Amino acid sequence: MCELLGIASSAPVDIAFSFSGFVLRGGHTGPHADGWGVSLYQDRFARTFLDERPAYNSPLTRFLHDNPIETRLAVAHIRRMTLGGARLENTHPFVRVFQGRHMVFAHNGTLLHVRERPLALETPLGDTDSEHAFCWMLERLRERYPAGYGDDAGALGATIFELANDLGRDGIFNFLLADGRFLFARCGDNLFHIVRRPPLGRATLVDAELQVDFNQVLRQGGTLSVVATQPLTRDEAWIRATPGTLWVFENGELLNTFAGLPEAAHVAETAWRPGAGPPT
Amino acid sequence: MCELLGIASSAPVDIAFSFSGFVLRGGHTGPHADGWGVSLYQDRFARTFLDERPAYNSPLTRFLHDNPIETRLAVAHIRRMTLGGARLENTHPFVRVFQGRHMVFAHNGTLLHVRERPLALETPLGDTDSEHAFCWMLERLRERYPAGYGDDAGALGATIFELANDLGRDGIFNFLLADGRFLFARCGDNLFHIVRRPPLGRATLVDAELQVDFNQVLRQGGTLSVVATQPLTRDEAWIRATPGTLWVFENGELLNTFAGLPEAAHVAETAWRPGAGPPT
Repeated sequence: MCELLGIASSAPVDIAFSFSGFVLRGGHTGPHADGWGVSLYQDRFARTFLDERPAYNSPLTRFLHDNPIETRLAVAHIRRMTLGGARLENTHPFVRVFQGRHMVFAHNGTLLHVRERPLALETPLGDTDSEHAFCWMLERLRERYPAGYGDDAGALGATIFELANDLGRDGIFNFLLADGRFLFARCGDNLFHIVRRPPLGRATLVDAELQVDFNQVLRQGGTLSVVATQPLTRDEAWIRATPGTLWVFENGELLNTFAGLPEAAHVAETAWRPGAGPPT
Repeated sequence: MCELLGIASSAPVDIAFSFSGFVLRGGHTGPHADGWGVSLYQDRFARTFLDERPAYNSPLTRFLHDNPIETRLAVAHIRRMTLGGARLENTHPFVRVFQGRHMVFAHNGTLLHVRERPLALETPLGDTDSEHAFCWMLERLRERYPAGYGDDAGALGATIFELANDLGRDGIFNFLLADGRFLFARCGDNLFHIVRRPPLGRATLVDAELQVDFNQVLRQGGTLSVVATQPLTRDEAWIRATPGTLWVFENGELLNTFAGLPEAAHVAETAWRPGAGPPT
């Protein structure tokens, strides 16, 4: 098992705040000591940093702390090995170029039989269930959207919700999937999110007794959504997903919530983008 | 135009030596001030660091200097923009997952019309001629080797030689292409290599008046090949390629040399792997 962290923001942010609490779990306050990775989008390009060593004492963690890279969309992962060895090619997030953008995927949980599903075009670099599941989903997306999947987050969310429910029957399938615009966050058993917007207060990190002023984080104003397998802060109201839920974030806001069984897929919440239609 | 550096070694090396002279050209002693990148293979996985800022004062350059990553195969590039803006997605090396390995590509020169060649499966992230050429070559390789191209460096080299000559008629096409085992180095107009083996002496960097003891570089012994668009050292005998040449390096050695026009493709040199057959 391992930890997931996703960030979607309306304005570029230095994610050092949430990241610093998160990386402490990499062998220091948590048991997740088998490597870590983070993808920081700049438009369609995901700059990805991976380390097969624990995050809390990684020189790369210090580099990112000392030289913050601002981003509007980020996916991070800290790994405790279940299936697949502790090698770089088994470290999340996994990255592929797909229809002119970087697609990034990080998984928490285990899918016991996913590697029995054949792949035609995509090839895993490592031997994890997670990367195989990512490749399988990309092949299905390529079939459904041969000419490019466009910018309809509702339609794309409905497809990913359906694929996730198919794969999710095989085990625990918490994941984050990003394409440079949207962040798709799927709950297998544990997933929380919070949307931060002005007026911003203070919060205390769960892992380190540190007070942070959010006005410093969102220096340029705007809205910031954070999604994680466990709440990162102590004194904020994190929203817990029911198992099977898929959240879609864009531009710092929660855009859609897909909940329930695949047969009853529906949009439960579109509050943050008035006028957005239901998925087709 | 821009600079290329490739390294193939029989044993893991810290490439800080050649890299330190190379990055000085990124805006300091050379005109190549529009970004840089390096891919460091660990088996089939290429850990890739990119920066759209000049190399010589990049925090990432300092990080790699202070925290050397040992590798047996590396490709580096310093860019001076010709076609395509100075953005991250236009920074070399370009990376794709192909048949279970990272393929890495860096180009020096300009191919004026390559973007008119249609692509079916691969999609560029940026708008450079270089990435388009890389995508086009990958599609041709996928057609020729649908079930995986195996480990026949001679056959693969002959195919890449042919593809490179096709593309090379469109402009200047110096490139490095690596797959985690082989380093393919193609000369359009400028390409040099040197094979370093024991007993190792001392050499002086062209860009910085620095004496380096190669026994420190190849601490574990073995053989090291370096290929670059300009010689990096002052007092060594670098071998210059004739235009159109494709060199294939593996395990620190020059394995094959393809020279001449495509119609007359032949192996000119297999000296470093006795018993290796000609390409088929």
